[in-house]
Amino acid sequence: MDFPISQKGRRAHTQPISYLMAQGLAGESISLAAGLVDAETLPAEEVTRCAAAMLAQRGRESLQYGTTEGLLSLREKVRERLCRADGVDADDIPVDRVFLSTGSQQMLYILTELMVDPGDIVITPAPTYFVYLGTLETAGADVRPVETDGEGMRPEAFGGLLEEIEAEGKAGKVKIVYTASYFQNPSGVSLSPARRKELVETLNSLTTARPLVIEDAAYRELRFEGGDTPSLWSFAGGRGVAYLGTFSKPFSPGLRTGFAVLPEEILEQVRVIKGNHDFGSANFSQHVVDRFLEEGLYDRHVRKLRAAYAEKCGLMCECLERELGERAEWLRPGGGLYVWVRVPGLDTGLESALFKRCVANGVIYVPGAFAYPAGRAAPKDRMRLSFGPASKADIREGVSRLAKSITEVSHRVGTGGRTV
Amino acid sequence: MDFPISQKGRRAHTQPISYLMAQGLAGESISLAAGLVDAETLPAEEVTRCAAAMLAQRGRESLQYGTTEGLLSLREKVRERLCRADGVDADDIPVDRVFLSTGSQQMLYILTELMVDPGDIVITPAPTYFVYLGTLETAGADVRPVETDGEGMRPEAFGGLLEEIEAEGKAGKVKIVYTASYFQNPSGVSLSPARRKELVETLNSLTTARPLVIEDAAYRELRFEGGDTPSLWSFAGGRGVAYLGTFSKPFSPGLRTGFAVLPEEILEQVRVIKGNHDFGSANFSQHVVDRFLEEGLYDRHVRKLRAAYAEKCGLMCECLERELGERAEWLRPGGGLYVWVRVPGLDTGLESALFKRCVANGVIYVPGAFAYPAGRAAPKDRMRLSFGPASKADIREGVSRLAKSITEVSHRVGTGGRTV
Repeated sequence: MDFPISQKGRRAHTQPISYLMAQGLAGESISLAAGLVDAETLPAEEVTRCAAAMLAQRGRESLQYGTTEGLLSLREKVRERLCRADGVDADDIPVDRVFLSTGSQQMLYILTELMVDPGDIVITPAPTYFVYLGTLETAGADVRPVETDGEGMRPEAFGGLLEEIEAEGKAGKVKIVYTASYFQNPSGVSLSPARRKELVETLNSLTTARPLVIEDAAYRELRFEGGDTPSLWSFAGGRGVAYLGTFSKPFSPGLRTGFAVLPEEILEQVRVIKGNHDFGSANFSQHVVDRFLEEGLYDRHVRKLRAAYAEKCGLMCECLERELGERAEWLRPGGGLYVWVRVPGLDTGLESALFKRCVANGVIYVPGAFAYPAGRAAPKDRMRLSFGPASKADIREGVSRLAKSITEVSHRVGTGGRTV
Repeated sequence: MDFPISQKGRRAHTQPISYLMAQGLAGESISLAAGLVDAETLPAEEVTRCAAAMLAQRGRESLQYGTTEGLLSLREKVRERLCRADGVDADDIPVDRVFLSTGSQQMLYILTELMVDPGDIVITPAPTYFVYLGTLETAGADVRPVETDGEGMRPEAFGGLLEEIEAEGKAGKVKIVYTASYFQNPSGVSLSPARRKELVETLNSLTTARPLVIEDAAYRELRFEGGDTPSLWSFAGGRGVAYLGTFSKPFSPGLRTGFAVLPEEILEQVRVIKGNHDFGSANFSQHVVDRFLEEGLYDRHVRKLRAAYAEKCGLMCECLERELGERAEWLRPGGGLYVWVRVPGLDTGLESALFKRCVANGVIYVPGAFAYPAGRAAPKDRMRLSFGPASKADIREGVSRLAKSITEVSHRVGTGGRTV
């Protein structure tokens, strides 16, 4: 039976990453691919106590429908925490600007629906969070990547792109500027304070309709050392920027609770669209998260997480250094879950000799090309390694298998003369 | 700041029902409007024990990311239960056709995205579930209502509509036929077995591209007496029909766990779109629901619910009889949460004298016009009363206030000569 599906339905292509995710979950290889969190760190005991205490107090309330925006007391905590982190007076931010969503992914989806018609332009860094690239593909967006370096999107590249779009007569079609500002997936790079400031100034100087800036701060809490950086949102005085955060990475993805602080101008439409989606994400989860924060368990947990991930990140970098040395390049990230590795001269794609050797040797990674929009130039020699879910033993063994695979492929290149 | 929002964003209008929901939650009046479940029935103690047992066994698993489709063991249970209820061999239904979603509302949304481009036709009963009408408005659908009677959509009306659409040259634009087959919101009517059969035959005889049938079975479990009716899905042999159910109404809305059994042809696109939305609804909730079923608590709970709602429904009908007698008409429903009342000669709309009197007297209902697509003829003299969340005392007092308001308005009509 053939159903007459919509244009959107026809753009809903299976992402190759699904294959990797399935492999990662099936656990057939050591997965340095999956963007999961470390299972060992998931605070099952604390959540057990916390859920029991919450249920004793607000059991029926948590099992009833909540509101479309989400649990008020949790939204107030989200506002307080963000304002404190950014040195903003919480009284200046009405709590109705705070929404809870099913992970921050759902808010990314809703904001994209709200802004983007097919053919509209979305600007992202290159590389960028690839799940969002899939969402943009289904939305029919024209994705324009901006070159990045160790401080995030390069201002000259961003400015150049805007001029290019202007020259195409498409300035009015720029709807979203997306940026993951902290320890970005996949590169681990943060947008530097100077760049945050400059980006806001550039956007403020636009004379055309203003695109919505989406600041994805999913990894902000997972900082290994040093102080926090004020958000892009705070540099913009909260104007024109949707700040997205989540309790998935720094707490428990299974609760699927993300949050957003939104510009006032779009609140009503977001409420309507979110209402159409589900009239509110899981109220029960929100009550658990709220209690977890209330009891001070969250801050303690985040401190533990930082230490755990910092250690695993250090271990992965040491292993890379020892096993690959000059055959690879990477930037040691200051937070997050990923190391972005370059293997000069090698193709890392799903169909490449290297990827196949890795699968044969029992290790998988995310090919870097996934982090660039389809149909645009992308370096072939990058890969994303995740130290999130892997154990220390798996990190050691996984990097060792990766190194072995690189050696085998390089050897073949050397002797067989085949270009890979 | 004006953002250049999308076509969809511009169609995202606030639904007047939001005002009612907010009033219902704020508890300023007796709400006979809210479609919430009875708070007294929410099984907080059972969920507490169940969540603790689940966490002890699968704590970290439940706090980690799940899959886009949802928890396998719960999907298997959903399949078993549906197949048992419908007398279908579960082996004939691959489990990959079962998806979990954030309430059944999210699956309604996703299926609408999958099928409907702006201007496409969606056929619904009249009256119908009004939240879905809001979703359809945002999607830009051309909603075509089908007249109903005490057995659901009238086949002649359905056939006539198809001919009308054919005559307009729009047969290819019919994308979805939506029907809530059990104790429909708002009318309480179920689609009769004969009508289910006939609807399937009519659809099977179509020579144009086949619309997707969405069978919304949200209230199936809330049957007060007598035997179950096989689903439309089973009459269609599972072909061409998406069967949507939920654990909200018969268990706990706050867990936001709905489910769907989908036609094979659309599985992949639904997976992609659902992945774009949130890569899976709250895994934690799904584990709680799964355990609740596993321990046999669910069936016991549903039995309790049926008795509780049957009693409250009976009470509401008695009160209507006593207080309104011949000034109103209604059909006593065999299940669900609603009584659909006609008050001949009166306008029930939000701006009507009656509604204003009711607010002044401290009772609210849902004006019947909301349950008909905007811009199409709708009777003005209907209202939906819900016996879900109201206590017995509130049902008595609420119906009494309603009767008082009707008297006041009728009196005014009689003496002032004003047509309302």
